[in-house]
Amino acid sequence: MSHPRVSGVGLTHFGKHPERTGRDLFAEASERALEDAGVDRATIEQLNYGNFMGALSEHQGHQGPLMAEAAGIPDAPATRYESACASSGVAVREAVKDVRNGEADVVLVGGAERMNNLGTAGTTEALAIAADDLYEVRAGMTFPAAYALMAKAYFDQYGGSREELAEIAVKNHDNALDNEYAQYQKPISVEEALDAPMIAEPLGLFDACPITDGASAAVLVSDEYAETHDLDAPVALTGTGQGGDKMALQDRNYLARTPAAERAAEEAYADAGIGPQDVSVAEVHDCFTIAEVLALEALDFYAPGEAIGAAARGETTRDGDRPINLSGGLKAKGHPVGATGTSQVVEMTRLLRGDHPNSDAVGGEVGVVHNAGGTVASTTVHVLEVRT
Amino acid sequence: MSHPRVSGVGLTHFGKHPERTGRDLFAEASERALEDAGVDRATIEQLNYGNFMGALSEHQGHQGPLMAEAAGIPDAPATRYESACASSGVAVREAVKDVRNGEADVVLVGGAERMNNLGTAGTTEALAIAADDLYEVRAGMTFPAAYALMAKAYFDQYGGSREELAEIAVKNHDNALDNEYAQYQKPISVEEALDAPMIAEPLGLFDACPITDGASAAVLVSDEYAETHDLDAPVALTGTGQGGDKMALQDRNYLARTPAAERAAEEAYADAGIGPQDVSVAEVHDCFTIAEVLALEALDFYAPGEAIGAAARGETTRDGDRPINLSGGLKAKGHPVGATGTSQVVEMTRLLRGDHPNSDAVGGEVGVVHNAGGTVASTTVHVLEVRT
Repeated sequence: MSHPRVSGVGLTHFGKHPERTGRDLFAEASERALEDAGVDRATIEQLNYGNFMGALSEHQGHQGPLMAEAAGIPDAPATRYESACASSGVAVREAVKDVRNGEADVVLVGGAERMNNLGTAGTTEALAIAADDLYEVRAGMTFPAAYALMAKAYFDQYGGSREELAEIAVKNHDNALDNEYAQYQKPISVEEALDAPMIAEPLGLFDACPITDGASAAVLVSDEYAETHDLDAPVALTGTGQGGDKMALQDRNYLARTPAAERAAEEAYADAGIGPQDVSVAEVHDCFTIAEVLALEALDFYAPGEAIGAAARGETTRDGDRPINLSGGLKAKGHPVGATGTSQVVEMTRLLRGDHPNSDAVGGEVGVVHNAGGTVASTTVHVLEVRT
Repeated sequence: MSHPRVSGVGLTHFGKHPERTGRDLFAEASERALEDAGVDRATIEQLNYGNFMGALSEHQGHQGPLMAEAAGIPDAPATRYESACASSGVAVREAVKDVRNGEADVVLVGGAERMNNLGTAGTTEALAIAADDLYEVRAGMTFPAAYALMAKAYFDQYGGSREELAEIAVKNHDNALDNEYAQYQKPISVEEALDAPMIAEPLGLFDACPITDGASAAVLVSDEYAETHDLDAPVALTGTGQGGDKMALQDRNYLARTPAAERAAEEAYADAGIGPQDVSVAEVHDCFTIAEVLALEALDFYAPGEAIGAAARGETTRDGDRPINLSGGLKAKGHPVGATGTSQVVEMTRLLRGDHPNSDAVGGEVGVVHNAGGTVASTTVHVLEVRT
């Protein structure tokens, strides 16, 4: 099978951009990706675009054609994918399928989100549409509270401590120090994390990712196209997986496991013909520190109950055997929701091809990205490999 | 190439359901589709779902997993597609590609929309997110006004009259008389249409589709699956096309043509290996009467300027050579936005396989469905054929 190549990637700075619209952000990210790819904009056959809360934050739906225009390809078919925080992970997955099945040779994929203009309360309310409005949101559930429930369930079932969660936050802040696109380029200590205000016990402020504006883009091309056009695109997307689960936490059998992610990982590994032992590096969806723990177990890097101490033990730090979230993760790099899934592909591509500030921490040629929606009711997992 | 078969279809009644949630509506439509298909729910591999304004009408995003649960397949990967009024047309397209490329053998596709709970003013404001918020909506543009501009441009360029538009409304109301799912099962006259209140000159109230709650679903299976499981599924989806265009009317070169639909039609015809002359019957996106005219020209059933009189001449009525919108169309059957694209596939399947109240008006075995987003900034076109 022909595997799509990532021929170019682009990001905006992740952070606060109150004066910039979503289309403005996506125009910048897509321009960078096109320049990096070295492909002519006229060759782009379609746009796969992820956005989550545009109807609420910018009174703007139908962003497919709008963002195609922002990217300079106004006549191209363009589709918006929405799967909460996994929106542009799904956009990537559909692009991978289209390229490897010969439906398209050159696809622009990406996402954007504008959040800070809503303020903190407004953003919390907008994010809540990723949960079950009838049975969770109206009962007062917010996402910090939901992930706090998952953390408590994890602690109850397997043990774990707030210190171990803090080590994850410290690691991800440390990873972001040299990442110019990151919202936070400042170190934090375990003590600072533990002393930060509690937002939903056992999660404190430093266990949560920030509110972020930003955009991401990548150009995927077929093997044949890359070869014919002599493109320098050493990173291939060799596996894709998607999993689902019941929407509301109350309807699930487990709170301390994420079966949607387990299913996505299993499919992606089988698709790529690899196993978790082959993976050198991963970007996972750490919207909260506990989410990184759940992700590492769903990806089968650790048995249930074992990942909580991974950062504290130094196994997932930049000097560890399998560094996790070398970009800084959602925690420190930021989480512009609809942009995050493609952003992980952008970061992994840079890490694997050697032009990321943290590329020197990568000890192999196989990376995985994990993008989760809501309380992991939807997940995509992708495998990226160097294929020179 | 293997063409997906439509093995089962289901609809709710289209109309006012203020007491029913989106998930409730989709549960009904998907249950009907599964029963009609005669496939076990456990064999469904994924849900492709279209919804447009759920964030505004039900404070509910992330509807993929929510609707998978409503359909009784909570663990299946589920994706929401949003392309304004073409949302579930895009969901169909992606399902067609997945089935014919071997990514899945059994896919549930559908859509739902709840609108009446917003009231007329609220719905108008919510529908506006399908237009360019910065450059159209803030200038006061509404969809009736936008289509009125397109109608005026058409009249200026090619000629045409309000009477000819009224004939389209009369035809579509007539077609809906026996359709139990239709919002309006009542005849109207040209005089009534012309006497109705003007909403945006030259469009009167009877030139516009109503505000509708409803859901649609279809089960697509591979040829091989249908054969192996001895399914009675004579209708195949043999062609798919998608087109894009600039979002705002002001940025386009023409207001009286719809290039996004022209591109989608061209692709779908080529994909199916047919031409417009082979098409016996079509369901087109008549959100306003003028939209049916533009659709018929984009599908190349008529040269530019020729479709305006088609209904008046009796060419597109149920006794005509190529009946259009035998379901009643969006105009009389109703337009629950996210459900419409799949609903057109549902109606065409019933028309072609012979169990639609208007099947006797179908004079051939090739049908086309045309689903447009916004002011036709996005469009999907599909070809359905009887393949016994």
